[in-house]
Amino acid sequence: MPTPDGSSPALSIAMTPVTTDADHGLGTVGIFGTGDFGRTLGLRLLQAGYQVVFGSRKPQRSSLLPQGAQVLGHAEAAGVAQVIFLAVHRDNYDFLVPLADRLAGKVLVDVSNNLRRNQYPEPNAHYLSKLVPEASVVKAFNTVSAWSLQSGGLDANRQVLVCGDSTESKQRVVDVARSLGFTALDKGSLLAAGEIEDYPLQLFPMWRLPAAVAVGLTASLFAYCLLMDVIYSWVTSKKDMSFRIMVSLANKVFPMVSLMMLSLCYLPGILAGFLQLYNGTKYKRFPDWLDRWMLCRKQMGLLALAFGFLHVLYIMIVPIRYYVRYKVVSWTISQMKENQSEFDNTVAWYTDSYMSLGVLGFGLFILLGITSLPSVSNAMNWREFRFVQSKLGHLTLLLCTSHTILYGWKRFLRAQTYRWHLPPAYMVALVLPCVVLGLKLLLVTPCVDRILMRIRQGWERKPRPAGASDRTGANGKEPLML
Amino acid sequence: MPTPDGSSPALSIAMTPVTTDADHGLGTVGIFGTGDFGRTLGLRLLQAGYQVVFGSRKPQRSSLLPQGAQVLGHAEAAGVAQVIFLAVHRDNYDFLVPLADRLAGKVLVDVSNNLRRNQYPEPNAHYLSKLVPEASVVKAFNTVSAWSLQSGGLDANRQVLVCGDSTESKQRVVDVARSLGFTALDKGSLLAAGEIEDYPLQLFPMWRLPAAVAVGLTASLFAYCLLMDVIYSWVTSKKDMSFRIMVSLANKVFPMVSLMMLSLCYLPGILAGFLQLYNGTKYKRFPDWLDRWMLCRKQMGLLALAFGFLHVLYIMIVPIRYYVRYKVVSWTISQMKENQSEFDNTVAWYTDSYMSLGVLGFGLFILLGITSLPSVSNAMNWREFRFVQSKLGHLTLLLCTSHTILYGWKRFLRAQTYRWHLPPAYMVALVLPCVVLGLKLLLVTPCVDRILMRIRQGWERKPRPAGASDRTGANGKEPLML
Amino acid sequence: MPTPDGSSPALSIAMTPVTTDADHGLGTVGIFGTGDFGRTLGLRLLQAGYQVVFGSRKPQRSSLLPQGAQVLGHAEAAGVAQVIFLAVHRDNYDFLVPLADRLAGKVLVDVSNNLRRNQYPEPNAHYLSKLVPEASVVKAFNTVSAWSLQSGGLDANRQVLVCGDSTESKQRVVDVARSLGFTALDKGSLLAAGEIEDYPLQLFPMWRLPAAVAVGLTASLFAYCLLMDVIYSWVTSKKDMSFRIMVSLANKVFPMVSLMMLSLCYLPGILAGFLQLYNGTKYKRFPDWLDRWMLCRKQMGLLALAFGFLHVLYIMIVPIRYYVRYKVVSWTISQMKENQSEFDNTVAWYTDSYMSLGVLGFGLFILLGITSLPSVSNAMNWREFRFVQSKLGHLTLLLCTSHTILYGWKRFLRAQTYRWHLPPAYMVALVLPCVVLGLKLLLVTPCVDRILMRIRQGWERKPRPAGASDRTGANGKEPLML
Ligand SMILES: Cc1cc2nc3c(=O)[nH]c(=O)nc-3n(C[C@H](O)[C@H](O)[C@H](O)COP(=O)(O)OP(=O)(O)OC[C@H]3O[C@@H](n4cnc5c(N)ncnc54)[C@H](O)[C@@H]3O)c2cc1C
Ligand SMILES: Cc1cc2nc3c(=O)[nH]c(=O)nc-3n(C[C@H](O)[C@H](O)[C@H](O)COP(=O)(O)OP(=O)(O)OC[C@H]3O[C@@H](n4cnc5c(N)ncnc54)[C@H](O)[C@@H]3O)c2cc1C
Ligand SMILES: Cc1cc2nc3c(=O)[nH]c(=O)nc-3n(C[C@H](O)[C@H](O)[C@H](O)COP(=O)(O)OP(=O)(O)OC[C@H]3O[C@@H](n4cnc5c(N)ncnc54)[C@H](O)[C@@H]3O)c2cc1C
Repeated sequence: MPTPDGSSPALSIAMTPVTTDADHGLGTVGIFGTGDFGRTLGLRLLQAGYQVVFGSRKPQRSSLLPQGAQVLGHAEAAGVAQVIFLAVHRDNYDFLVPLADRLAGKVLVDVSNNLRRNQYPEPNAHYLSKLVPEASVVKAFNTVSAWSLQSGGLDANRQVLVCGDSTESKQRVVDVARSLGFTALDKGSLLAAGEIEDYPLQLFPMWRLPAAVAVGLTASLFAYCLLMDVIYSWVTSKKDMSFRIMVSLANKVFPMVSLMMLSLCYLPGILAGFLQLYNGTKYKRFPDWLDRWMLCRKQMGLLALAFGFLHVLYIMIVPIRYYVRYKVVSWTISQMKENQSEFDNTVAWYTDSYMSLGVLGFGLFILLGITSLPSVSNAMNWREFRFVQSKLGHLTLLLCTSHTILYGWKRFLRAQTYRWHLPPAYMVALVLPCVVLGLKLLLVTPCVDRILMRIRQGWERKPRPAGASDRTGANGKEPLML
Repeated sequence: MPTPDGSSPALSIAMTPVTTDADHGLGTVGIFGTGDFGRTLGLRLLQAGYQVVFGSRKPQRSSLLPQGAQVLGHAEAAGVAQVIFLAVHRDNYDFLVPLADRLAGKVLVDVSNNLRRNQYPEPNAHYLSKLVPEASVVKAFNTVSAWSLQSGGLDANRQVLVCGDSTESKQRVVDVARSLGFTALDKGSLLAAGEIEDYPLQLFPMWRLPAAVAVGLTASLFAYCLLMDVIYSWVTSKKDMSFRIMVSLANKVFPMVSLMMLSLCYLPGILAGFLQLYNGTKYKRFPDWLDRWMLCRKQMGLLALAFGFLHVLYIMIVPIRYYVRYKVVSWTISQMKENQSEFDNTVAWYTDSYMSLGVLGFGLFILLGITSLPSVSNAMNWREFRFVQSKLGHLTLLLCTSHTILYGWKRFLRAQTYRWHLPPAYMVALVLPCVVLGLKLLLVTPCVDRILMRIRQGWERKPRPAGASDRTGANGKEPLML
Repeated sequence: MPTPDGSSPALSIAMTPVTTDADHGLGTVGIFGTGDFGRTLGLRLLQAGYQVVFGSRKPQRSSLLPQGAQVLGHAEAAGVAQVIFLAVHRDNYDFLVPLADRLAGKVLVDVSNNLRRNQYPEPNAHYLSKLVPEASVVKAFNTVSAWSLQSGGLDANRQVLVCGDSTESKQRVVDVARSLGFTALDKGSLLAAGEIEDYPLQLFPMWRLPAAVAVGLTASLFAYCLLMDVIYSWVTSKKDMSFRIMVSLANKVFPMVSLMMLSLCYLPGILAGFLQLYNGTKYKRFPDWLDRWMLCRKQMGLLALAFGFLHVLYIMIVPIRYYVRYKVVSWTISQMKENQSEFDNTVAWYTDSYMSLGVLGFGLFILLGITSLPSVSNAMNWREFRFVQSKLGHLTLLLCTSHTILYGWKRFLRAQTYRWHLPPAYMVALVLPCVVLGLKLLLVTPCVDRILMRIRQGWERKPRPAGASDRTGANGKEPLML
C-alpha cells in the first residue's frame, strides 16, 4: 500500500537503483516499527528487490512510509513474512507476546541498540528470545546506523555482525544484509548478542589505556622540558626562550614519549617471561593488570609509532627554522672571525652514527606498523608475525635506544648539562628502555632461555599432587606445536 | 582424451602442482568453448584435480586443448558434467537452445564480458537465463582475466564475484573458484549480474570527478603562480626566474591544491546539513550533484592527502637546493657586513608555530588516510569511523588552514605582495577553507545543532498531510539508532 | 569431571568470559591427547560454551586438565562426541585403528604439525584418513599455536585454515573455530592438507630470493663505494674519510639498490614478452627461473620501496649533519673571500629538476606500495591493478632513472670522476634500469606491440599440426577476455 498522498519520502540513496524486476523478487520481509530505522530499512529493502510489509499498531494512520511498502496490523504482517525485523525499543517488546503463535518458526531480527552498556540486566536479544521462544531470534544490523543505511555513501564499515542459534535463520539474515550491499560476519550463537549490542557503543576501548599513558607521559615530559629549557633560562639569565615551545620542545617530548611507549610495549612480555619462570609453569593465570597490559600492546606500539612519526616530521623542518638559520649565520660569522676550527672526525662519526641509527630504527618502526594492518597480518602465519613483531620489534627498541644514547654522547659528563642538579630529559627517557633491554638480555641468556622454552612447551617444575599425567601430545622434549 | 599429437600446450603455472590423485577427484566440470579463456580455465581445472570435458561443435577438430581433458560434442558434454562453464561470446549463445533439456538442472556459468557498458539491452547472464530457463545460471569468473588464470603470478585481486538465483548452484561455483586459488564473493541474486559484468570494464569510476577537480585546480593555480612568480619578474625587471618552476612553484601549487581539496571534502556534508535545516526533514532527496559529490569524498580526501604528501617531500628538499644554499650564503655575507641583526622573538614564534601546525595537520591527515584503508575501516564501528573522519577530519582542516594563514602572517599588509593588484596565490587558496570552516561553525552552534540533531533522528518540521504516524521506534526524543 | 584436587589450571585468557549458560550449550567436543595443545584447546572450548571430553589412555591418571572437562577412555570419548580433535603426534596415530568402528562417521580433526617439511612421505592428514577411512578427516587448527590459543592476546593472524573432503564436516569445524574467536578459511578438499601442514613451517618463503638479491646488491655496492669514497682517499691522499660510511655511503648504496631492484621488478615481464614473441605463442611454458622470478616481483618491489624509503630518510638528515654544516661554513667563508660567484640559472634548473623527479618518483613508488596492500588490491579490478602496477610502475622506473641520470648531470664528462679508471657507483647502478627501459621501449613500438597483443589474446604464429581449432570463444580479433 503506497502512502495515500503518493508523496513518497524519497531518500538519498545513490547506490542501489530501484528495481521492480518481478522475476527476481527476493521475497517478503516484515518490519515491525515505523520509526526512523524501520522506514529507512524498508526503503532500502524495496530498492534491493524485496517486498516489504510494515507491521503497525494503527496501519491506517501510518504515513511517511516508503512508497511500495504494504502496511498491515502486526498479526497480519507476521503472517505474510518469514523474516521480520523488529525495529522498536526493547521497552515495547511485550506487544509481541500475544502474537507468539503467529511468530512461531519466524525469523525475528533484533536490531536494537541501547544507550549505554549494562542498561538492562540481559542483552535485548536474550530478553526477546525469552519473550517469544517460538520464534528464531537473530541479532543483527544494530552495528549499522540508520544514516549509513540511508546514505549508503559513507564508505566506512559495511559489516553487519550477526548472531543467532539457528544456522538457517542466520543465513536468511545474512542474505538480506548481502543484498543491501553489506558484508555479514557470523559471530556464532545468540550468546554473542551482548557483545554485539555493546559493539556500537564503544569508542576505541582498547585505545583508552595507551592513550592515557601517552597523554600522561607527554604532559609530564613537557613540563620537565619547559622547566629545563625555558623557565631555567628565564630565572637564571632572564632570557626569553619561550619560542622554543612550538618546535624545540615538541621535538624533544615526542621522541621521548615514543621511546618510552615502545619500551612499554615490550615490557609486559618480559614480565610474563619472569612470572612464568617464577611460577615454574605457564598454566598459572597472569595478574589482571598484566593481562590487560598485554592486550593493549598493539595500540601502545601504534601510538609510539605516531609519536615517532611526528619526531621525524619535526626533524625535517629543523633546517628551515628561523632560529636555526639565525644560529647558523652566527656560527658561520664566529667561525670566520676566529678561523674555521678543524674538522673533527670523531664528531662526524658519532653524529652520523646517531642519525643513521635513528633512520634505521624508524624504518623498522614503520615495518612494525605496516605488519599490524589487519590485511597484512592476516597474510602472515604466526611464526612470521612473531618474527617481525617480537624479533624485529626488540631490534627496533635497541636501535632507537642506541640512537638516543649516542645523541647524548659525552654530554652526561658535562656539568652544565645538569641544570638545577636535574638530569636532562633525554636521560630520564632512557631509563625505561635500558631496563627493558637489560631484562630481555637476561631472558635470552642460554640457560634461562632453555628453561623458559620448556615451560612454554607445557613442562612444569613441580608436578601436581594428583600424579603424573599421560602426555601423549607434548612430552616435554618434542613440542606438538612449536 | 589428450590432444592427438600429444604436444600438450603446457602453460606457465607455478602455483598449483598438477595432481592426479584419483581418490580426491573433485568431479567433472564441463567447458563450452575452446577459445583462449576456455582452454586456460580447462588447464587450471585439471591441475586442481577436476576432470574436464570440453563441449565443441566439431570435437574431432579440437586441438590445442590441455592434455588430460576430454572433448565431446556439446550434448554429450552436457550429459557428463553438472557444472558447465560457458566460455563463448554472447552472440553465439543460441546454440544452447536445442540443448535445453540436456541442460535442465545443470549449473551454467556465464563468464562472458562485454567490450563496453550497455553494449546489449540486458546483462548477458539474464539473456542466457531466458534462453535456457531450465538451467541454473550463475554469473562468475568474468572479473578474472585469462592471463591471471594462466599466470597465477600477478598477486593482485584474486576475487571471483559470483551471483545467481540458486544458492546451491552458487555454492558449487564458489567451490570451483576456491580450488583454483581464488576467493569468492557472493554478490546475491542474478539481479547483480549487470553490476558484475560492468565491474571489469571500469577504470577507477569513483576517481574520475576528484581527479578532474585535482587536475583543474593544479593547472589553474600553476598558471596563477607562474604569472606572479616568473612572468611578473620577467616583465617588470627582466629577471629570469624560470628555474623556480621545478620546485618553488610545485611546492606552492601542491599544498594549495591539497588544502582546497580537503575543504571540498567537508563542504558537501555541511551543505547537506543546511539543506536538511532548510527542508526541515531528512526525508527529502538531495539534489543529484550533491549526492554524487558526497559519494566521492573519500577519493577527494585521498587525493588531497597525496598532494599534501608531495608538499612534505618538497619541504624536505628545500634546505639542500642550490638556490636556497646560494641565498643562505648571500644572506650570511650581508649579515656579516652589516653586523648580524637582532634575534626576533616574534618571528621565531610565528614561523615555528606555522611549521608546527603544518606538522600536526599532516600527522592527522595521514591518520585519516590510514583509517580509510579497507581493512582498517572494517575494524572500526561507525561511531569510531565518524569520530576519526568527521571530527578529526575537521580538526585537520582547521590545522592546515591555520598553518597557511600563519604562513602568510603579516604579508597581506605589505603592498608589494599584490603584484599587478592580484593577491598572492596562498590567499586565493585560503578562501574556500575559510568559508567551509565558517559554515561549519554556524552548524555547530548549540541552537542550530539541536535542530539538526532532531531532524537527523527522524523528526520533521511540518508533518505530512496524511496524518500523524505511529512511531513506535523513534519517538523524536530518544533515537533508536544514534 | 573436574580435576581431582580442584586446582584448576587457570589459563590467562582475557577475551572470552567463561560461560555456563546451559541453554546455549554448543554440544560436546572430544579431544584425544592431553598434551599442551589438547589442554589449552579444551579450556578454550569450555570457555566458549562447549562440553569437552578428553580421550585418554589412562583416564584416571589425567590431571592438569581444565576444570569442567570430562576424561574418559578413548572409546568412550569417541562415543560421546561428534567432533574429535586429535592432538597427538602422528607417530602415535595407530592407537586409532582399533577404534575404527567407534569413529565411523565422526569428524576427526587433525591439528598436527611437523618439525620440518617432507618429514613424512605423505601429509599427516592423508595418513590419518588412510588409517581410519571410516571417519571424516578435517585438517585444521595447525596454523594456530597453543600459545595464541591460550593468550588470545596477540592480535595477529586469527585465521584457521581448514580443509577436508566433506563439506558438512568442515562446516562443523569452522563453527568451532568461529566460536573460539578465529576466522576460518576453507582451503578446499583434503588435497590441500600438505600445503596447510607446510604453512606454519614457512618463514617468508616468497621473500627469500628478493631478500638474497637485496643483500647481495647492498654488499657489493657498499664494497664498491667504500673503495671509491674511502679507500681511494686514504691510499692516494692519506685522508681519513671513514666517517662517510654511516650516512654518505648508506645514502649512496640504498638508492642504487632501490633503483636496481625496481628494474628487476619490471625486467621479467619484458623478458616474458620477448619470449612470447620469439615462440610465437603464449601457450609455451616459460623457463623455470623466469616463472620463479615473476612470482616474487611483488616482494622485489616492496624491498625496492623499503630501500627508497631509507634513501628519503637519509636525504632528510643531510642538512643537519655535522659534516654538511662544516662544509657549508667553509663554502660560505670561501665565497665571502673571493666575492660570491654568480647565480647559475642552469645549475638551479638541473638540480631542482633532479630533486623534483625524485620527489614525484617516490610519490608514485608509495602509491605502488599502497595498492599492493591486500585489502586495497582486493578493492580494485585487475584492469585498475594493472594500470597502477604496470603503467604507473614503469613510469616510476622512468622517473627514478631520470632522477639518477640528472643527479649525475655532466659529471660523467669530468676525468676526476673516474677514480682508478672505474666509473662512479651511480653509473653502475644506471645500467640495469636503462636496459630495462630500452627493452620496454622496443616492446611498445606499435608494430611489436600489435603482434604481442594478438599472441596474448591466444593467437599463434604457426598452427599446430593437428589442424585448425574451432575457437568459438576467441577468434583472434575480438578477445573474449580483455
Ligand atoms: C608499530 C607497532 C605495531 C604493533 N602492532 C602489533 C599488533 O598488530 N599486534 C600485536 O599483538 N602487537 C603489536 N605490537 C606490539 C608488539 O610488537 C607485539 O605485541 C610483540 O609481539 C611483543 O613481543 P614480545 O616478544 O614482547 O611478546 P609476546 O610475543 O607476546 O611474548 C610475550 C611472552 O609470551 C611468551 N611466549 C611468546 N611466544 C610463546 C609461545 N609460542 N609459546 C609460549 N609462550 C610464548 C613469552 O613468555 C614471551 O616473553 C606493535 C608494536 C609496534 C611498535
Ligand atoms: C585522507 C582522507 C581519507 C578519507 N577517507 C574517507 C573514507 O574512507 N570514507 C569516507 O566516506 N570518507 C573519507 N574521507 C572524506 C571525509 O573525511 C568523510 O567523508 C567524513 O566523514 C566527512 O565528514 P562530514 O561530517 O563532513 O560528513 P558526514 O559524516 O557524511 O556527514 C554529512 C552530513 O550528514 C549528516 N549526518 C552525519 N551523520 C549523521 C547521522 N548519524 N544521522 C543523520 N545525519 C547524519 C549531517 O548532515 C552531516 O552534516 C576522507 C578524507 C580524507 C582527507
Ligand atoms: C612498491 C611495489 C609494489 C608492488 N606490488 C606488487 C603486487 O602487489 N603484486 C604484483 O604482482 N606485483 C607487484 N609489484 C611488481 C610489479 O609492479 C608488478 O608485477 C607489475 O604488474 C609488473 O608489470 P609488468 O607489465 O612488467 O608485468 P605483467 O603485468 O605481469 O606483464 C608481464 C608480461 O605478461 C604479459 N601480459 C600482461 N598482461 C597480459 C594479459 N592481459 N594477457 C596476456 N598477457 C599479458 C605481457 O607479456 C607482459 O610483458 C610491485 C612493485 C613495486 C615497486
